[in-house]
Amino acid sequence: MSVTAAKGFTAAGIAAGIKENGNPDLALVVNTGPRRAAAGVFTSNRVKAAPVLWSQQVLADGELTAVVLNSGGANACTGPKGFQDTHATAEKVAEVLTAAGTETGAGDVAVASTGLIGVLLPMDKLLPGVEKAAAELSEHGGEKAAIAIKTTDTVHKTAVAVKDGWTVGGMAKGAGMLAPGLATMLVVLTTDADVDAKGLDAALRHSTRLTFDRVDSDGCMSTNDTVLLLASGAAGVTPDQDAFAQAVQEVCADLARQLIGDAEGASKDIRIEVINAATEDDAVEVGRSIARNNLLKCAIHGEDPNWGRVLSAIGTTSAAFDPDALNVAINGVWVCRNGSVGEDRELVDMRYREVVITADLAAGTESAVIWANDLTADYVHENSAYSS
Amino acid sequence: MSVTAAKGFTAAGIAAGIKENGNPDLALVVNTGPRRAAAGVFTSNRVKAAPVLWSQQVLADGELTAVVLNSGGANACTGPKGFQDTHATAEKVAEVLTAAGTETGAGDVAVASTGLIGVLLPMDKLLPGVEKAAAELSEHGGEKAAIAIKTTDTVHKTAVAVKDGWTVGGMAKGAGMLAPGLATMLVVLTTDADVDAKGLDAALRHSTRLTFDRVDSDGCMSTNDTVLLLASGAAGVTPDQDAFAQAVQEVCADLARQLIGDAEGASKDIRIEVINAATEDDAVEVGRSIARNNLLKCAIHGEDPNWGRVLSAIGTTSAAFDPDALNVAINGVWVCRNGSVGEDRELVDMRYREVVITADLAAGTESAVIWANDLTADYVHENSAYSS
Repeated sequence: MSVTAAKGFTAAGIAAGIKENGNPDLALVVNTGPRRAAAGVFTSNRVKAAPVLWSQQVLADGELTAVVLNSGGANACTGPKGFQDTHATAEKVAEVLTAAGTETGAGDVAVASTGLIGVLLPMDKLLPGVEKAAAELSEHGGEKAAIAIKTTDTVHKTAVAVKDGWTVGGMAKGAGMLAPGLATMLVVLTTDADVDAKGLDAALRHSTRLTFDRVDSDGCMSTNDTVLLLASGAAGVTPDQDAFAQAVQEVCADLARQLIGDAEGASKDIRIEVINAATEDDAVEVGRSIARNNLLKCAIHGEDPNWGRVLSAIGTTSAAFDPDALNVAINGVWVCRNGSVGEDRELVDMRYREVVITADLAAGTESAVIWANDLTADYVHENSAYSS
Repeated sequence: MSVTAAKGFTAAGIAAGIKENGNPDLALVVNTGPRRAAAGVFTSNRVKAAPVLWSQQVLADGELTAVVLNSGGANACTGPKGFQDTHATAEKVAEVLTAAGTETGAGDVAVASTGLIGVLLPMDKLLPGVEKAAAELSEHGGEKAAIAIKTTDTVHKTAVAVKDGWTVGGMAKGAGMLAPGLATMLVVLTTDADVDAKGLDAALRHSTRLTFDRVDSDGCMSTNDTVLLLASGAAGVTPDQDAFAQAVQEVCADLARQLIGDAEGASKDIRIEVINAATEDDAVEVGRSIARNNLLKCAIHGEDPNWGRVLSAIGTTSAAFDPDALNVAINGVWVCRNGSVGEDRELVDMRYREVVITADLAAGTESAVIWANDLTADYVHENSAYSS
C-alpha cells in the first residue's frame, strides 16, 4: 500500500532509462489534497547533494504538492550543473502536473536522488521519464513507486499504520551508507490526516530521532538522506498530536527495521540495548560506539559472543560508567559481569539472524536501542565492486 | 637489533607455553644501567587491562629496570585476580633479576600483555617462563624478544636510529585493534643516551602524537596499548633534546609504518594527507574520518578511486571548510575539484599496495598525515574466527 495507503495521494514508478539495466528508476508521489502541508528532515552531512539543498529550500514554506525521486544517480558533488538539473526536474514535474489539472509551481516539488556520487544525471532520459510517470499516476501506484527507488536493496520497503479514520503510509530505500545523521537514503511518508506543517514537523523529528537516527548499519553517513512527510487532509480528521506522532513513529520504526534487515551484505541484525545509563545521550553514544566497532561486527558475523570487544568499544566513549561495574549480555546470557568474566560464553546461542547485545552501564536509569549489522565478506565484496 | 641496539640493555624471548601452539610468547627487556630513567604512554581506552593499570603506577617515579611482555593473553577484563597476576609477574621478574645480581623491586618492572580479552593468564606457565627468559638474557636478545610478542603479526617489527655516539632502538607488535588513542599494541624503545625521565617523557609524547596516534588501521582502540621508552645512559652522552626527540620520532615512525604494512587482512596501505586545513586538529579530525569510512576502505580494496566517499567522510566532521571548495587527489590525480568532478578517474593507477589520498580543505595552512588500511574479506575472516 505504501504511500498511497493514505487517501489524497497518487503515485507511479517507471523505468526512465537512468539505470543502464533498464530497471525502474523514477518515482513520483503527488498530494491531491485538499491540504498540502509537509515537513522534512535531511542528512546532517555537510556535503549535501543538489536535491537535498533544493528540497530544504522548497520545504521552507511547509507545503509540497509532489515528490519526484530517482535511483541510478545521487546528483551529489556535481556542482552548479547538478543543482540546475534538480531545478529543471522540479520545473518539469510542475509543468506536467499543472497541464494535467493539479496546478503547482516548482517551488512545491521536492526532489530526491540516490545512486552514484559525482556523476551528472542523464537529463535527456530523466525529463521524459517525468512525463511518463505523470501519465501513470494512480491511487494504487505506491508499490511501484517503492520499487523504483531501490538501488542495492533486494526488496522494496513499505509500511502502513491504519488508525481511527486516518492512515499513515510510507516507503523507504536504503541498504548502504546507513548511519546517524539519518539512517536511510530516501523515505516518503504520507497521511490523510489533517495536520499542519508545524504538527508534521514535530511528529517527524520526534519519530526520526528514535528510529532512523538509531540505525547504524555501517557507520557511513550519506550525502542524500531525505525523509519527507506529506499530509493531504483527505480523511477530514485532525488527530491528537501525540496519537499522530505515535503513528508516524510506528511507520518509521517498521521501515527502519526493514532497512537493517536488508543492509548490504549483512548476515546478522544486531539490536544493541544500552541500559542503566546516566543520560539518554550517554546511552546513544555507547550504542553507536558498539555499533561501529568493526572487530565486534566481525565477531558477530562469526557467531562469536566476544564481549571483550563490547567493553573495548564502551571504553572509547565519554559516557558515565565505572569499568569495574559494566555488565554485558549477548542473547540474554550475562557473559560479562562487573567488567570481568561472567556466565559461560558457551551458553550463548547465536544461530539466528537477530542478535541482542545488552550493555548495562550501571550508572543511571536511561536507555536507548541502536540497530546495526554485522561486517561480512559480502559487504566488502559489494562495496569494493560498486562504484559510488 | 631491536631493543638491544642501544648499549646497556639485555633481552630474551622464549616459549613459556602460554600459547597453545608452542610459539614464543614471553619477552624480557632489562636495563643494565648505569641509569634507569623511563617514560610511557598508554591506551586512552577507559577500559584498561591489568598490566596497563600496573605499568602506569610503576612509571610514576620515572624509573624502570625491566619490562616483561607476554603474548597469548591480554589479561584485560579479568577483575582483581588479573591485577594480582600482573603484580605476581612483576614480583617474579624482580626476584630472578635480583638473584642474578641486578637488584630491583617489583615497583621498577613494567608488565605488558597482548592476546585474548577476558581470559586469565596461565600463571603456572608464565612464572616459570620468567625464570627461563631471565636465564637467556643477552645483549643480542632483541630479535628474539620482538618475535615473542607477536600475535597475528606475520613478521616481527624492529627499528633502530644510530646517531652520533648514541642509539635509539625499538620493537613493536600489533596487527589488529590499531587506532588512536594509541595505534599499536605493544612497543618498547630503548636508548643508551643519558636522558632523564622528563626528557624521555617529552620526546615520547611528541613522537607518539605524530606517529602511532596517526595510525588508524581499523578504528578500534585496544585495552592494552603500551609504549615504553627506557634509557640506560650507557653511551655516556646527553644529546640535545630536539635531536633526541627527532631520533625517537624516527624509530616510532618506522615501527608505525611497519604496523600498517602488516595489519590484519589488509591489501592496501592508505596514506591520507589532509592539507590546507585551518588547524592541525581539523586536519587530524578529517584524516581520521576518512580513515574510518568503511565504504571508502572497501572501494580502495577494489582499486576504485571513489572520491565521493572521501567527500561524504569529510562532510561528517566539524572542520572548517566550504563543500564547494574541497579538492581530492588519489595517487596524485585530482579527481575532485571544487567539490565536484575533476580529472578523469580513469587516470588513477591503484595497482600498488600504497595508496595516497590527498584532501585539500582550502581553509588554511595546516596539515596532517593519517595512515589506514583497506577493508577486505580477509580482515572479516580473520576477525570472525579469532576470538578475543
